[in-house]
Amino acid sequence: MLALVAEDRGAGAGGRVLTAAAPDGDLTAILERVAATVRPHLGEGRVAGYIPALARVDPSRFGIAVVTVDGRVATAGDARVAFSIQSISKVFTLTLALAKVGNDLWKRIGREPSGSPFNSIVQLERERGIPRNPFINAGAIVVTDVLLEGRSPGAVIDEVLEFVRYLADDPAVAIDEEVARSEAETGHRNYSLAHFLAGFGQLKNPVESALSVYFHQCALSMTCVQLARAGLFLASAGRDPLRDRKVVRPERARRINALMLTCGHYDASGDVAFRIGLPGKSGVGGGILAVVPRQGAIAVWSPGLNANGNSHAGTIALERLAAEMGWSVF
Amino acid sequence: MLALVAEDRGAGAGGRVLTAAAPDGDLTAILERVAATVRPHLGEGRVAGYIPALARVDPSRFGIAVVTVDGRVATAGDARVAFSIQSISKVFTLTLALAKVGNDLWKRIGREPSGSPFNSIVQLERERGIPRNPFINAGAIVVTDVLLEGRSPGAVIDEVLEFVRYLADDPAVAIDEEVARSEAETGHRNYSLAHFLAGFGQLKNPVESALSVYFHQCALSMTCVQLARAGLFLASAGRDPLRDRKVVRPERARRINALMLTCGHYDASGDVAFRIGLPGKSGVGGGILAVVPRQGAIAVWSPGLNANGNSHAGTIALERLAAEMGWSVF
Amino acid sequence: MLALVAEDRGAGAGGRVLTAAAPDGDLTAILERVAATVRPHLGEGRVAGYIPALARVDPSRFGIAVVTVDGRVATAGDARVAFSIQSISKVFTLTLALAKVGNDLWKRIGREPSGSPFNSIVQLERERGIPRNPFINAGAIVVTDVLLEGRSPGAVIDEVLEFVRYLADDPAVAIDEEVARSEAETGHRNYSLAHFLAGFGQLKNPVESALSVYFHQCALSMTCVQLARAGLFLASAGRDPLRDRKVVRPERARRINALMLTCGHYDASGDVAFRIGLPGKSGVGGGILAVVPRQGAIAVWSPGLNANGNSHAGTIALERLAAEMGWSVF
Amino acid sequence: MLALVAEDRGAGAGGRVLTAAAPDGDLTAILERVAATVRPHLGEGRVAGYIPALARVDPSRFGIAVVTVDGRVATAGDARVAFSIQSISKVFTLTLALAKVGNDLWKRIGREPSGSPFNSIVQLERERGIPRNPFINAGAIVVTDVLLEGRSPGAVIDEVLEFVRYLADDPAVAIDEEVARSEAETGHRNYSLAHFLAGFGQLKNPVESALSVYFHQCALSMTCVQLARAGLFLASAGRDPLRDRKVVRPERARRINALMLTCGHYDASGDVAFRIGLPGKSGVGGGILAVVPRQGAIAVWSPGLNANGNSHAGTIALERLAAEMGWSVF
Repeated sequence: MLALVAEDRGAGAGGRVLTAAAPDGDLTAILERVAATVRPHLGEGRVAGYIPALARVDPSRFGIAVVTVDGRVATAGDARVAFSIQSISKVFTLTLALAKVGNDLWKRIGREPSGSPFNSIVQLERERGIPRNPFINAGAIVVTDVLLEGRSPGAVIDEVLEFVRYLADDPAVAIDEEVARSEAETGHRNYSLAHFLAGFGQLKNPVESALSVYFHQCALSMTCVQLARAGLFLASAGRDPLRDRKVVRPERARRINALMLTCGHYDASGDVAFRIGLPGKSGVGGGILAVVPRQGAIAVWSPGLNANGNSHAGTIALERLAAEMGWSVF
Repeated sequence: MLALVAEDRGAGAGGRVLTAAAPDGDLTAILERVAATVRPHLGEGRVAGYIPALARVDPSRFGIAVVTVDGRVATAGDARVAFSIQSISKVFTLTLALAKVGNDLWKRIGREPSGSPFNSIVQLERERGIPRNPFINAGAIVVTDVLLEGRSPGAVIDEVLEFVRYLADDPAVAIDEEVARSEAETGHRNYSLAHFLAGFGQLKNPVESALSVYFHQCALSMTCVQLARAGLFLASAGRDPLRDRKVVRPERARRINALMLTCGHYDASGDVAFRIGLPGKSGVGGGILAVVPRQGAIAVWSPGLNANGNSHAGTIALERLAAEMGWSVF
Repeated sequence: MLALVAEDRGAGAGGRVLTAAAPDGDLTAILERVAATVRPHLGEGRVAGYIPALARVDPSRFGIAVVTVDGRVATAGDARVAFSIQSISKVFTLTLALAKVGNDLWKRIGREPSGSPFNSIVQLERERGIPRNPFINAGAIVVTDVLLEGRSPGAVIDEVLEFVRYLADDPAVAIDEEVARSEAETGHRNYSLAHFLAGFGQLKNPVESALSVYFHQCALSMTCVQLARAGLFLASAGRDPLRDRKVVRPERARRINALMLTCGHYDASGDVAFRIGLPGKSGVGGGILAVVPRQGAIAVWSPGLNANGNSHAGTIALERLAAEMGWSVF
Repeated sequence: MLALVAEDRGAGAGGRVLTAAAPDGDLTAILERVAATVRPHLGEGRVAGYIPALARVDPSRFGIAVVTVDGRVATAGDARVAFSIQSISKVFTLTLALAKVGNDLWKRIGREPSGSPFNSIVQLERERGIPRNPFINAGAIVVTDVLLEGRSPGAVIDEVLEFVRYLADDPAVAIDEEVARSEAETGHRNYSLAHFLAGFGQLKNPVESALSVYFHQCALSMTCVQLARAGLFLASAGRDPLRDRKVVRPERARRINALMLTCGHYDASGDVAFRIGLPGKSGVGGGILAVVPRQGAIAVWSPGLNANGNSHAGTIALERLAAEMGWSVF
């Protein structure tokens, strides 16, 4: 049991039967409809090509899963096929880092959207190595540095994996070592960022250690069902509603959601907030995790990416589903 | 009656008595408490000094008002003292422009946060005169250009004033001509932006016309009560709940809220989303309009600004109020 | 007689017969050869299109003139056809401004190359309205502000014109009012820059006055012969060798040459220094003035511009001529 | 014997006695005067602190040497004390790379000044990994990549050392291994740049190999006399005048001089061109190599740096010497 999640137990948990995740027919029908409308768009995006293991993925794949705070599960398509969650992992490492160092984290990372990748480098220079937010690569590398605390990369990778397995309530979540290796081999831009941060004295552990954790977290392989389940605590005031256990304080969960809304989709974060209106985090593997406060979590996956590096069909599916369900924080 | 707001009337409006705005004792007590905790911070910010009429304002002023969707009104402090709403007016001109041209607006303006003022110029150059969003000055100037449609600045200024009076349900809302004149006299940066836009062919009306409208909208003078009332439709799915009349479609209201959340506080938008979690728009006059979907609208005013150009005490007050009421979109 | 140029008279001038400008057959033959090799390139560039009066110029025009410090003149092609010197005028206004305020000028303008136009705006923002050098538009606008000294634009325009006529030793040099008017009508980017400077408090005279001078100086209309003659003092340690009169101190002439070499060709200044190795200043009218220290001045004109905004055929001609004559400062 | 320098021998060399380097009393007296005027400034700059071996150097050191094309040598101060030449080495590796690949080099590196270090990163991003010029770090790293040609770093380091010893006509020139090690240990910014370049596919050899060469070339340890002697070929049309042997073609020497003038002093290159008017290259060790075409080469050293990272006293000394001798290319 992780120290983080063992720290409290809901007062009434002992007394009531927790709802186990169970299928939901109505929601499933809606997801099937969404999947059908998305189908014509499946070939339109471009699969991320910089990592061989990612480039090989079939671009016509599409999966979607919803897990609600009262334990219903609905899926459509390839919702139980594992994919590389890539940057979505930043939500989980941020959560872990906040649990460790609390608001001290914000001395080393900002909370503002960064605009284009171009801007993020310019700003990193102007702001002397303080990344704009924890969801750009530079920020996520600082998060791994926070997690390291002088430990070996392996220990931290194990901790991250154990934490995500706990959140997903599924020990089958794994790290794809081939993907992790590929990330390291082709990760010049991330090496550049990490050394840039180190040049400003913003990394306390060796560049190689921080990047080893980073490349492994990006290589987490999960299904839509696992991912939605893992994000459920964010829809439930920081509490895992199906175990009735606190993961983070309510305020912290709201804040992670705020960061996802303002910074979760690279330079399309504003557009996604505008069109979909839900906190979300995307990854170049084609996955998106979205949070519907007080309702549930959504995970969608389709490998073809739009011009902003977000799942093309996944974004369309989320927009349809949110519209149909009336799910918007606004 | 404005064409915009006359276009529909709620089906059931004829049959029920609409709630008139009425005082709310409990909420007032809470606002008084918030005002008391804010008091020690009233001298800390810096009053915007670039316009004489703004620079003369007493920095110790503080007012707050809440108007709820069911018609309750609560206030504390100088909630009925008029102040210069400045950039908060961008919410109202955006609403008007969307009513006129709909989503065509987004061909000329983006929907992404812009980061620092420095970035906004860099991006305006890189993106060939397409402002990042309608809440940075460049974007708001394009919005005035959309409103002009070849008309005289005076006609558009009248239309904006009439619209804001309608939303505020108060014909006493006025434009402070001295402030408008001061804006024009000291507005080199805005002239520079407008000519920059014109250089990219992004203005269809004369620079002087667009800026005349812009300088006048910034000079709108409103009280917290008027401002909260005027923003109420954004908390109520685009409908003025006290008149039971549509202002904009529900989807559009959600989208304006999304823009306020991601772009409403300059380069502190992410931080405000993180700490407060409500859509809001601030102005250098020290005012902030915030929206609590399905609950109501808040207006707060205190002239001292923090380093990001947002009301120092106003931001603190909003954070306290939101925490106390549990008001957050996340 | 201008005060500037009347200030001294060479000690030995009374005693020797000054060489009047006279034709030089050998040099003419070389220029003819250069013109012949350039001919195939005459259609390749693009004529500046933003001003109607410039856009109408025949792109196949080509002229070149050399005036040597011992008074020889050689020409080929359209060397006696007047063209719009545009930014080349910045050399003359800089010379005038230095004569007026000396090194105090460098408190308001830098002396570094600015890179691309994109960079020049970024840097102007970062450096709070101090233009990088007097040859970018922002710097030249500050130079006009220095020249104004509270006077009317007309008075300064007259002074600039008189000065250039004196340097060219030809009262026929004129300002093309149609071009000046066109510059003003299409000059949004320059209005933007001027207001940007004014926003930083870097203009002491009205924006309209500074720009009026600027647009008129750009509209100076000169022939290659006039232009080479006017630049001769820069090849002769600041002294007009044909009148034996000082224009500027030797050190100052060297420094103007240094600025021309490092900053005279926009973002191709380094490349021109590399390929040609002579101080020079180009204009979008297709003219280039180049200086060969201790030898003479060259003016070349061909309206087609390369990607960097410098005369395409003119640059090739200068490179050939410099190579053939062994003219390089390096 | 290096292949590069063995390729030709002056036709008339057999017939005349080459002047060996010999002391020059008059020039020595001038250098002594320059040294005396510089003395009060010796404590003013800041010694580069990022490498322990450099930080330990006594800031009051000052040396200057001139070697003329006719073989005279003059010195003052610590002209025979070895110091770390750092970025001055970029002149020698550029010369070697041009000898190997000729103008193909310019497909991978530009020839324009880069402005501030901030700009150089921004531009590197905008220009997709093509460094602005060979004298910024990114450009010099690409030069080492060109030199590597698949060889081991050790082989290239040996080649560079042999080449510099040949140019300096002194086998005592050495690489300070402690400095090279320090560069590698503290060189995060250079690792960042190299990975950035590699991310754009601009390095053909491993990042570690290119940086190993780079860190070693920066650690070259030379005296002012050795350095001036090594740069003499640039003052003599690419020919070593004391051995009567070609190093590079005349055109190439002029072009290297042009690059030194426009790009040799970081973001003060324009200012140095303006004040001194000679091609030069500075290093953070406090050394400057300057070239006086047709006259000779100057090396000056004083460890205290000015705000632009150039030797404070060295720059003053160069300015005095150039003024006194009338040495300027303009």
